[in-house]
Amino acid sequence: MHWQPNEFVLLVSPEGKRLLVKVEDKRFSTHHGEIDLSKLQETKPGEAVFTHKGVPFLTLKPTLYDFIHRLKRRTQIIYPKELGYILMRLGIGPGSRVVECGAGSGALTMTLAWWVRPNGKVFTYEREERFAKLCLENLSWAGLKPWVELKLRDIGAGFDERDVDAVFLDVREPWCYLKQAWEALRGGCVLGILVPTTNQVSEVLRGFEEVPFTDIDVLEILLRRYKPVAERLRPFDRMVAHTGYLIFARKVLGK
Amino acid sequence: MHWQPNEFVLLVSPEGKRLLVKVEDKRFSTHHGEIDLSKLQETKPGEAVFTHKGVPFLTLKPTLYDFIHRLKRRTQIIYPKELGYILMRLGIGPGSRVVECGAGSGALTMTLAWWVRPNGKVFTYEREERFAKLCLENLSWAGLKPWVELKLRDIGAGFDERDVDAVFLDVREPWCYLKQAWEALRGGCVLGILVPTTNQVSEVLRGFEEVPFTDIDVLEILLRRYKPVAERLRPFDRMVAHTGYLIFARKVLGK
Amino acid sequence: MHWQPNEFVLLVSPEGKRLLVKVEDKRFSTHHGEIDLSKLQETKPGEAVFTHKGVPFLTLKPTLYDFIHRLKRRTQIIYPKELGYILMRLGIGPGSRVVECGAGSGALTMTLAWWVRPNGKVFTYEREERFAKLCLENLSWAGLKPWVELKLRDIGAGFDERDVDAVFLDVREPWCYLKQAWEALRGGCVLGILVPTTNQVSEVLRGFEEVPFTDIDVLEILLRRYKPVAERLRPFDRMVAHTGYLIFARKVLGK
Amino acid sequence: MHWQPNEFVLLVSPEGKRLLVKVEDKRFSTHHGEIDLSKLQETKPGEAVFTHKGVPFLTLKPTLYDFIHRLKRRTQIIYPKELGYILMRLGIGPGSRVVECGAGSGALTMTLAWWVRPNGKVFTYEREERFAKLCLENLSWAGLKPWVELKLRDIGAGFDERDVDAVFLDVREPWCYLKQAWEALRGGCVLGILVPTTNQVSEVLRGFEEVPFTDIDVLEILLRRYKPVAERLRPFDRMVAHTGYLIFARKVLGK
Repeated sequence: MHWQPNEFVLLVSPEGKRLLVKVEDKRFSTHHGEIDLSKLQETKPGEAVFTHKGVPFLTLKPTLYDFIHRLKRRTQIIYPKELGYILMRLGIGPGSRVVECGAGSGALTMTLAWWVRPNGKVFTYEREERFAKLCLENLSWAGLKPWVELKLRDIGAGFDERDVDAVFLDVREPWCYLKQAWEALRGGCVLGILVPTTNQVSEVLRGFEEVPFTDIDVLEILLRRYKPVAERLRPFDRMVAHTGYLIFARKVLGK
Repeated sequence: MHWQPNEFVLLVSPEGKRLLVKVEDKRFSTHHGEIDLSKLQETKPGEAVFTHKGVPFLTLKPTLYDFIHRLKRRTQIIYPKELGYILMRLGIGPGSRVVECGAGSGALTMTLAWWVRPNGKVFTYEREERFAKLCLENLSWAGLKPWVELKLRDIGAGFDERDVDAVFLDVREPWCYLKQAWEALRGGCVLGILVPTTNQVSEVLRGFEEVPFTDIDVLEILLRRYKPVAERLRPFDRMVAHTGYLIFARKVLGK
Repeated sequence: MHWQPNEFVLLVSPEGKRLLVKVEDKRFSTHHGEIDLSKLQETKPGEAVFTHKGVPFLTLKPTLYDFIHRLKRRTQIIYPKELGYILMRLGIGPGSRVVECGAGSGALTMTLAWWVRPNGKVFTYEREERFAKLCLENLSWAGLKPWVELKLRDIGAGFDERDVDAVFLDVREPWCYLKQAWEALRGGCVLGILVPTTNQVSEVLRGFEEVPFTDIDVLEILLRRYKPVAERLRPFDRMVAHTGYLIFARKVLGK
Repeated sequence: MHWQPNEFVLLVSPEGKRLLVKVEDKRFSTHHGEIDLSKLQETKPGEAVFTHKGVPFLTLKPTLYDFIHRLKRRTQIIYPKELGYILMRLGIGPGSRVVECGAGSGALTMTLAWWVRPNGKVFTYEREERFAKLCLENLSWAGLKPWVELKLRDIGAGFDERDVDAVFLDVREPWCYLKQAWEALRGGCVLGILVPTTNQVSEVLRGFEEVPFTDIDVLEILLRRYKPVAERLRPFDRMVAHTGYLIFARKVLGK
C-alpha cells in the first residue's frame, strides 16, 4: 500500500536529517533539491522518494514520538520517557476526559489527545497567550486539535470540569492548585505532577497534608542509550541526567 | 456519581493491602470480614466501603497500572516503566493493528489491547500452552479479551498478518525472527524488542545486518522512587536495577 | 611466601562465608570444625587451610574494603563507593592531618587512617559514648588505632586543630558547623559533607552563604553490579539506590 | 602559614578558569596580566594573588583530583569516580608494590603513586612510546616520578615483578594477559580491569575460566552532579553516562 493523501510522512535525508511532511499537492524544499509531496502517493512507506536532483529521502511512518521531538517549542517540554509513564499511571485511555495545566508547547497535550481518541477529551489550561497559541499551532499541525479544548486563563479560580478521569499539573507552583485538582477529579482517580526541583517536591508533599489525596508516589525516570554496535556494545558517553520529578496521588473523599 | 455495575474497583485495606474487585452481586471475603460488592453502588469512588464487621476499605479507580501489578504471572513480566515507553515508540494508538510474541503472562498484551481500543487489534503469539491459557485468563479478568487474538504456535514459519502498525518481540532469541517481523510490518513502521542480557542485544544487532531495518535504537530505563516525606526527601534505599534492554528499529524497503 | 605472624587473613568457607582472622597462636571455631590459626604460617596466600575435619577454607588477602564490610556497626556506615571518591576529593594522602566528625562505627575513620599512614593523623570527634567505643574497638581490630585520635565531645565549641588538610562532616546538621570547619581548615583546602536527604543539602547550601567557601560541588554516586556470567551478561536485578549526597567545598580567606 | 617554595598552587581566575602552578622564581602569563609566582610566598592559601594589572586570582590547595583533571592527555583517562573506587578495591596503601598496564596518559599511575608513598612502588608498562613519554612528563609535572618505574614494552612475555600487592590492566584485550597478571600477583591479592564495552567484559569472564581467580566482581559507577542552589536543588541536565566497566578478581593457588 502506498502513502495515502494527507498522511504524515517522516523524511530522512542521506545525512540522517529528519523532516515531518504531509502527502499533499505541494513542493517541499530541501538542501538536496525539491520533493514533490504529491508523488509520495506513488511511494510505499519504507521506500525512498527522490528530489528533483535525484537524491533519495527515506520515507518512514512518523509516530507520536517523532511529532513530539519535532514540535515547535518555547518551553521545556515533557519528554517521551516521562510521557509514556504518565500515560500508564493516569489511568486514562480511549474515551477518557482529562484536565491538564499548563499547556506549554503542548507535548503532553498531544500525547493525551492521541490516547483519548476517538471519543475522549483533553481540557488544557494555559495562562500565557504566546504558549496557548503555540500549543494550538502544534496541535493543528499534528491533527490532534479536535480532541482538545484549550482555555486561556489562570487556574486559581479552579477548573470548569468535574468528575474527570485524571488531572495533570505542569506548573511552577503546583502546591497552590491541589484543591482545584481535587475538585475536578472523580473520586479515586489520579493526579499527576511534574516539577524540576527537590524543593518543589517537598512543597507538594506539604500541600498533600491539607487536601485529601492518598497513594502518594514520587519518582524519577532515567533513560540510557547504547551505541548500536554488535561487537562494541556500550552506553553513549553522555545522557540526559534530569528532566524532572514525577508525583502521583489519588483523590479520596470524606477524610 | 456512585460506582456502576461491572465497574472495576481497587479496594485498599486499613493496612494498605490492595484488591481488585468488580461491582457485582457477590460477597467478597477479606481478613477483616465480608464485603457485599453490590453495595458499592451506594458508594462513591474515593469513599470507603465497610465489611460486615465495620472495617473500612477505601475504594479507588484502578488503572491499567494496577491491573498489571495484580495480574497472575508465571513469567517475568514487562513493567510499567517499559510499557509506557514502548507505547510511545511503537507509534500505535486507538485503531492500530499490532503483532506481539510471546504473550507470556500478558502484561504487554493487556497494555496494547487497552490502547488500541475501540477499533484496533492485538495479534499475540505464544507457543507454550500454559502461558497462552494464563494470558487469556488475565485478559478476560481485565475485560480486554475482545481486542486480542491469541495464537498458540511458534513463529518460525512467520506471522499470519501483513502491513501491521507495529511488532513487538519478547522472546529468548529475537534475532531468529527479524525476517518474520519485517514481513508482517508495514513499511516504515516500528519493531520493538526486549531482552535481558547484553549478549542478546549484540545478537539482535548482528541480525539487523541481514534484514533491512533502520533507526536502530538500544536503551534501558531506570526508575527511582523517593520516600514521600516533605522534610526528609530522599530516594528509597533500594531500587530495581535492571529489567531489560529495549531495542527499536524501523522497516525499510528496497535496500 | 607464606602468611606471616599477625598478618590479617580473609577466610572463605566452601559456601562462600567470609571471616577475617589474624595469624596467631589460637584455634578458631567454624561450623565446619576448628582452624589452627598458627598453621596459616605453613599456608600461602591464595591456598586453602583445612579445619580439623578436613574442610578447606580459602585464604585471601583482606583489603580495606573487606575490613569495612566486616566492621561491627551500630550506625549507617559510609560505603566504599563513597569512601574512595571522598579520598580523591579531600586532597589527602600519606602524611595528611584530617579532622572528621562524627566517628560513628568508624568506616571513614578507618579509611582515612589507612591512607594517611605512616606519618599522618586523623582527629575524629564523636559525642555519643557508645559510638566512640565502637569506633575505637573497630580501629583496634583493624590495627589502625595509632593513626587516630578520638575525642568524645560535641563540636559546637569548635575543633582543637588548626591548618588541617581536610575536614569531613558526617553529622545530622552539618550546616551548624561550617564555621567550625572553616576555622580548622588550612586555607584553600577541602571540606567534605555527607547527608542523606535533599532538605539537608539545601540547608548546607544556605549555610555556605554565611561562611567563605568556594568550589561547591554536590553529587551522588551510584554503583551497579553485573552478574559475572560471560554468555548472559546483565546487571543484578536490584541495587542500592541511595546512600547519601556528597558535598565538597574549599575554604577561602578574606572574602 | 603562607605558600611554601615549590608547593603547588591552584589559581582560579575571576571567570573561574583554573591553572596549576608552582611557587617558584618565575613570572606566569595570564590573559589578565602577569603573576610573579615567587610572590605566592607572601600569600596565604585561600587568599588571592594579584596580577601586575591588579586582577585577583584565588589561590587554592590542589588535590590529586585537580592534577588528574589538568594532566595532558592523548588517551581516554580513568576518571576520579573510578580511581577512588579502584584504590579501595585493590587493597593497596602506603608501601604497596603495584603493577599497572598500560600507562596511557598516567591518570591511574599518578593515583597509585600518590597513595603508595612514601615507600611503595608502581611498576607501569606501556608499549607505545608516545604514551610512555607523556606519562613520564605528567608524573614529573606532578612530582610523583620517584614512586614509578615505567617500562616501555609489551606484556605478552609477562611482567618482571612477582608477589606484588595488586595488578591493574587498562588495555584493549585484557583477557590475553590474565595468566601474566596471575604470575605477578601475590596469592589472594586483587586484579583490577577496566574495559569500555560489554563484549570485552564477556571476554574477560571467559578468560577467568582458564586462570585461577575467585571473587569475580563486575560493576559500573555513575556520578550525578547537582546544581548547588539551595532553593532550586536539582541535578544538572546532563551527565557522563559511561566511562567503563570495572572488573575485580582475586588470585587463588592450587586449583
